Amino acid sequence: MTELDSICQDLTVMAALGLGFLTSSLRRHGWSSVAFNLFLLALGVQWAILLDGFLSQFPPGKLVIKLSSIRLATMSAMSVLISAGAVLGKVNLVQLVVMVLVELTAFVTMRMVSRNVFSTEDHTNMMCIHVFAAYFGLTVAWCLPKPLPEGTEEKERTATSPSLSAMLGTLFLWMFWPSFNSALLRNSIERRDAVFNTYYALAVSVVTSISVSSLAHPRGKINMTYMHNAMLAGGVAVGASCHLISSPWLAMVLGLVAGLISIGGAKCLPVCFNRVLGIHDSCGVHYTFGLPGLLGEITYIALMMHQAVWANAILYQVLLDAGQFSLAVAMGLASGLLTGLLLSLKIWKGPHAAKYFDDQAFWEFPHLAVGF
Amino acid sequence: MTELDSICQDLTVMAALGLGFLTSSLRRHGWSSVAFNLFLLALGVQWAILLDGFLSQFPPGKLVIKLSSIRLATMSAMSVLISAGAVLGKVNLVQLVVMVLVELTAFVTMRMVSRNVFSTEDHTNMMCIHVFAAYFGLTVAWCLPKPLPEGTEEKERTATSPSLSAMLGTLFLWMFWPSFNSALLRNSIERRDAVFNTYYALAVSVVTSISVSSLAHPRGKINMTYMHNAMLAGGVAVGASCHLISSPWLAMVLGLVAGLISIGGAKCLPVCFNRVLGIHDSCGVHYTFGLPGLLGEITYIALMMHQAVWANAILYQVLLDAGQFSLAVAMGLASGLLTGLLLSLKIWKGPHAAKYFDDQAFWEFPHLAVGF
Amino acid sequence: MTELDSICQDLTVMAALGLGFLTSSLRRHGWSSVAFNLFLLALGVQWAILLDGFLSQFPPGKLVIKLSSIRLATMSAMSVLISAGAVLGKVNLVQLVVMVLVELTAFVTMRMVSRNVFSTEDHTNMMCIHVFAAYFGLTVAWCLPKPLPEGTEEKERTATSPSLSAMLGTLFLWMFWPSFNSALLRNSIERRDAVFNTYYALAVSVVTSISVSSLAHPRGKINMTYMHNAMLAGGVAVGASCHLISSPWLAMVLGLVAGLISIGGAKCLPVCFNRVLGIHDSCGVHYTFGLPGLLGEITYIALMMHQAVWANAILYQVLLDAGQFSLAVAMGLASGLLTGLLLSLKIWKGPHAAKYFDDQAFWEFPHLAVGF
Repeated sequence: MTELDSICQDLTVMAALGLGFLTSSLRRHGWSSVAFNLFLLALGVQWAILLDGFLSQFPPGKLVIKLSSIRLATMSAMSVLISAGAVLGKVNLVQLVVMVLVELTAFVTMRMVSRNVFSTEDHTNMMCIHVFAAYFGLTVAWCLPKPLPEGTEEKERTATSPSLSAMLGTLFLWMFWPSFNSALLRNSIERRDAVFNTYYALAVSVVTSISVSSLAHPRGKINMTYMHNAMLAGGVAVGASCHLISSPWLAMVLGLVAGLISIGGAKCLPVCFNRVLGIHDSCGVHYTFGLPGLLGEITYIALMMHQAVWANAILYQVLLDAGQFSLAVAMGLASGLLTGLLLSLKIWKGPHAAKYFDDQAFWEFPHLAVGF
Repeated sequence: MTELDSICQDLTVMAALGLGFLTSSLRRHGWSSVAFNLFLLALGVQWAILLDGFLSQFPPGKLVIKLSSIRLATMSAMSVLISAGAVLGKVNLVQLVVMVLVELTAFVTMRMVSRNVFSTEDHTNMMCIHVFAAYFGLTVAWCLPKPLPEGTEEKERTATSPSLSAMLGTLFLWMFWPSFNSALLRNSIERRDAVFNTYYALAVSVVTSISVSSLAHPRGKINMTYMHNAMLAGGVAVGASCHLISSPWLAMVLGLVAGLISIGGAKCLPVCFNRVLGIHDSCGVHYTFGLPGLLGEITYIALMMHQAVWANAILYQVLLDAGQFSLAVAMGLASGLLTGLLLSLKIWKGPHAAKYFDDQAFWEFPHLAVGF
Repeated sequence: MTELDSICQDLTVMAALGLGFLTSSLRRHGWSSVAFNLFLLALGVQWAILLDGFLSQFPPGKLVIKLSSIRLATMSAMSVLISAGAVLGKVNLVQLVVMVLVELTAFVTMRMVSRNVFSTEDHTNMMCIHVFAAYFGLTVAWCLPKPLPEGTEEKERTATSPSLSAMLGTLFLWMFWPSFNSALLRNSIERRDAVFNTYYALAVSVVTSISVSSLAHPRGKINMTYMHNAMLAGGVAVGASCHLISSPWLAMVLGLVAGLISIGGAKCLPVCFNRVLGIHDSCGVHYTFGLPGLLGEITYIALMMHQAVWANAILYQVLLDAGQFSLAVAMGLASGLLTGLLLSLKIWKGPHAAKYFDDQAFWEFPHLAVGF
């Protein structure tokens, strides 16, 4: 087992276990969360390998698959798993298949364009994944019919045991995030810095998420859902710039700010933003991946500007980075809108809004198990 | 930590976590599944190390234990864990100890004979583990008294939360299966091919298991138990020939066929086969490991024939491979029958058929916890 | 990813997942166990990195953080996680923060003194962690108000599903313990021996824990809690001397004795010792880590004596080792007493004894979820 394999395995653990169990806290939707996540992963990896192979060579010839292409494909497929968090419980399996095909095509195309037009490296254009996937998912969720307010409250509330399995998923993501952030870096010193900075940012995020969640509540009670979201915010925010940060303090500050933004988002967004725009975000993708991802991209642009000041090429550099970042957001929104409109067609026989978030719609239960 | 250690650790994770939690979906038998599995593993590894040491040298001298012997012993011990899936809930701890001792002796002897008589490599004779273990377990289950039909239905049905922990076990097996299939290969190119092909076969199996399970149900509902079984079928089927397959498409077709066979088996076998023969297969060992293992062995013989055609030695090669395969099946059935007859003696004080599948028979509960 | 990283990752898995879920079996305290454990880890690692950096250089200069310092800090932070097992459910988050700061300062100071005065190696002084942490935790628990006898019984009893998640934690500790025991050894042969001996001791511990637990009960029923504790005892006991033991049999005997001591302790201590002294040990830290740790230290001293006999320096060596060991115990008791007195002050607003072991005191529940 070489070094390559070991990172590839870490990524698979993150994708299959981490992202699968992260979204398993809905009271009646645990089975679907975990199993559909694995289905999306298995399908997505195969599709991404093919796409990567065909788009990266011109003229197209025989497809050569290397271990590094599985690694790249696993990371690309994670974009679908992140987006799925926003629509989970509101779509059926066929709709998810359509989503995999459209989203991965858009994501891989975006990365190809970004590499060829803005000449960014694999690491940099991959780290747009959080922003891309979050806004893709939110746009799709915006197009889908909203859940009925009365019935869902009971189904949406988290239960104790599922929350522990969501905690398990979060822990796996937390532990292996340094592998994710360093997977595509070629230089071993950059890789070491990336592991360190991610580690610091994640450690600070955890401390922030628990203490701020406790301080924000009148009687000092902690909110488990906020914690799941904010714990990972540091890893997301430090992603784009983890190989450039030279001081641990900067990574720690980034982890702190990301944790604060994530908890702030979890408190305010459902009321201010989602209700106004009519978006229903099942698992809080917006404040787990979207906002910290934005912070990370802005930090990356700022750091590149700071470096470019010495090289007298500041304007050019800012334009390049901002262009690449805008491309990711624009592609996310555009392909999300397309997918959303496609999925809201009647032909897919999607679940009715009254049956949202219910494992019973998809699974053959032994008896009428209420599950919990 | 060297490369060797890391594979050894992967195998331990598969055996302790994966196979332990895979069988934990029975409603009232979760504790026993996980704990007895670990007990069997710890005992089995020690017994297999001793057996491997004593049987591999002649004349017997001082036992030298290397890291590779722990690796080999862990893989051998997994045969017991697989067989245990067929008898779980119907035997007590003492009976399991007897089973460990007999089964491992038979399995290690089978591998020694296969190596010396048919001069097969470690990888090839180890990959008979699925067929050997499945038919061993089924024969033992055939000898044991059948569970009473009325009381068990309630106990056997899977519950939501245990199903998630079975999913966790399945995921661990799924993620680390490439390590299992490549663990005993010496050539690094063969090892790389084995990892790739296993990965593809497993990915296709997952997609197959969900979509076929959904298509086979009148209202498109997915069956969680079928999924647990069929997800892994690809890895089992590709095992024997994973280092020989040169095209990803072949591995993917194998994954597809294995998934279909596994789901077909899960639908038909309990009705047609088990009821007629009077076998009760607690966790579906027959269609999770047995049938896909048969497919894998047949594929291996076909591939070897294909290679041998060029070498003008086709008949000899087919005889060798078929002989080695028949030896595994025969040893599995014979030692299974022996063990089954031994275990059905009264002296072991096995649980009464009315108390099958009940944690309460083995565990000191704080109160009369019903489970949940 | 180098060898260093991989061990560091194993340690993080042990600390975050293993120790977190190990203590999650209390009926109503699962959320707090897992989440507070992660909080303590994240805070403890940062504090330990700073302490290690400042105390290891004189005169203090710029702090240089290497990967090995994260590894050392993770191991140091595990002392807090072990101690927390004795006080869990009886303290709030602020009290835990105070405990982290005091305990880690004491532990890192103890290791520095031990290294400079007794010139022990990193591995040797780190392996006092079990004894140090267990007696620190017990002393703190002694100072805190005792739980009321009537209300707690119901809350303390373990439930089925939490017991499975505690089993998951135990399994992760069990699987990665060889990495823990070999993490600080520099010589690759010593490291290999450490991995082997830990593996044997753990395997014997599992077999011992199940069989003895079953034999000790009048109707042969196994106690899940005893099992959680005794399974790991072998790894703890073999820790200090794992690189010195030359024969597998010695490691296996150590695993057997440690398992017996741990189960004996679990049976007798709550009645004889804890009730007399008025200590309430939430998760059995005393017999999981304390007693096997004592056994390990005594074995280490005996082995060093045995080696020193040949070198004619027996008295000096015994004095050195015994001195280092006494220092660990004394520091544990003294700093534990200090922390306990500090924590029993009213200013921390600790939970009232009637509200011990209750997630509801710390967590914002969606509704009045009873948990299960």
